Amino acid sequence: MPSGPHTPHAIDLLLMGETPRVWSFVVSLFGDLAQGPGESLSGVVLTRLAAGAGVKPEAMRVALHRLKRDGWLVSERAGRLSHYRLSETGRAQSAAATPRIYATEGVPGGLWHVLVAGDAAGAAVLTDLAAEGAYMQAGPMVLAGPGPAPDTGGVLLAVEGQAAALPDWLRDLVCPPDLVAACARLTAALTAAEALLPGETGPLDRAILRGLAVHGWRRLLLRTPALPDAAFPDSWQGPAARAALARLLARLPRPDLGEVEAEALG
Amino acid sequence: MPSGPHTPHAIDLLLMGETPRVWSFVVSLFGDLAQGPGESLSGVVLTRLAAGAGVKPEAMRVALHRLKRDGWLVSERAGRLSHYRLSETGRAQSAAATPRIYATEGVPGGLWHVLVAGDAAGAAVLTDLAAEGAYMQAGPMVLAGPGPAPDTGGVLLAVEGQAAALPDWLRDLVCPPDLVAACARLTAALTAAEALLPGETGPLDRAILRGLAVHGWRRLLLRTPALPDAAFPDSWQGPAARAALARLLARLPRPDLGEVEAEALG
Repeated sequence: MPSGPHTPHAIDLLLMGETPRVWSFVVSLFGDLAQGPGESLSGVVLTRLAAGAGVKPEAMRVALHRLKRDGWLVSERAGRLSHYRLSETGRAQSAAATPRIYATEGVPGGLWHVLVAGDAAGAAVLTDLAAEGAYMQAGPMVLAGPGPAPDTGGVLLAVEGQAAALPDWLRDLVCPPDLVAACARLTAALTAAEALLPGETGPLDRAILRGLAVHGWRRLLLRTPALPDAAFPDSWQGPAARAALARLLARLPRPDLGEVEAEALG
Repeated sequence: MPSGPHTPHAIDLLLMGETPRVWSFVVSLFGDLAQGPGESLSGVVLTRLAAGAGVKPEAMRVALHRLKRDGWLVSERAGRLSHYRLSETGRAQSAAATPRIYATEGVPGGLWHVLVAGDAAGAAVLTDLAAEGAYMQAGPMVLAGPGPAPDTGGVLLAVEGQAAALPDWLRDLVCPPDLVAACARLTAALTAAEALLPGETGPLDRAILRGLAVHGWRRLLLRTPALPDAAFPDSWQGPAARAALARLLARLPRPDLGEVEAEALG
């Protein structure tokens, strides 16, 4: 099925004026379309999906080479075609990111904990925990995060309970103005793209549109900590973006891999 | 009634090798004996009580003068005698300290809160709160204390709940080794003094023994924050001191002011 009259326009909206970083876009595509064990995408399909997003075939080849070298993808030849699938590592990382990317609700915000270090041993523990990404750095030796306090062997002060106050200075640190603005732009793009969707969309276009929408949200999430929406600035439109993404994906059911291959080869 | 054979020995134990700072000892005496509105102690009684604790009459006169000048005491002459009582201010401060001094249980430790400042406005709020004395300074911009978080207008991060861990480095800051050692000495002195009490003790001796015991504990409390015992180092004997004081005071009922005056003048 060819692109409907509005599909290129919806794709343009989701590109938001830039060509995606190819290797990262491919990671988003595999996460959305072919995350299951044994699921693969042919080079032909990948080239068509990339082209739909304005990516040249050479750039796609370079990205696929890099992803194989880095152990994200493995490939097999079958006759004239190369087939790519996620490696064990790639699939594990994709599966780890999936719940947050596709969540229709934010991180639960009822319970919080604060951890305070008072010596070098404690500071090292905080550094490790902060690297996991689900914390606010409330001071040089202070982290705050959702959920119960981890057991850190008594080296840290740990208090867990309600967040009685999450001040503006801390929420601004959680999400700086450029990310707040990027989230607002993404929300607008997702909403506008949804309004332009034709009644029916072919498997390749669905894959491209889904891939771009998921990619835009995934890229934003990678740059923000996994914290409840209450930890973000008042101007953060994360909940609206999440809802717009869910509506768009509901309008664009995940295509069957066989259909995608058939359309690309046909 | 004259002092029993063991009373001077019990007094020596409670003095713990030093003469008390007189004005502070007088504050403890008024808090214990004559805190009620209109209750007063004559100069004769005060001189006898001071002498019992090894304080010379001149030193007592200086202390009374200073306490009047600072607005803690007021005095009235009645014939040959001066009568001293707490001023409104003195009584209010005495009443404010009384619950903690005479408490038979430590500060409740179930609920805690942590406050974190991120800017100068927050730091100023923390400085004011820390001056109230019921906080642990867990970092330059971090306080932890018992009970619910105060409303600080959203300028601070505030989390309230269970203390999942109170580390050694923090408890050592709450109570440094010299105070831990002073508490152990006081506990030993209170326990030993109780063992030496005669079956019956006269009103003046009861007032002196009570005054010294309360004074020793009050002086220690003034130097430690009003925090649950769990916030103190493992070697802190506060609960044992509190129990020993309560036993001693139970053995030495607070004397009637009339009896004390009669014994001093008689």
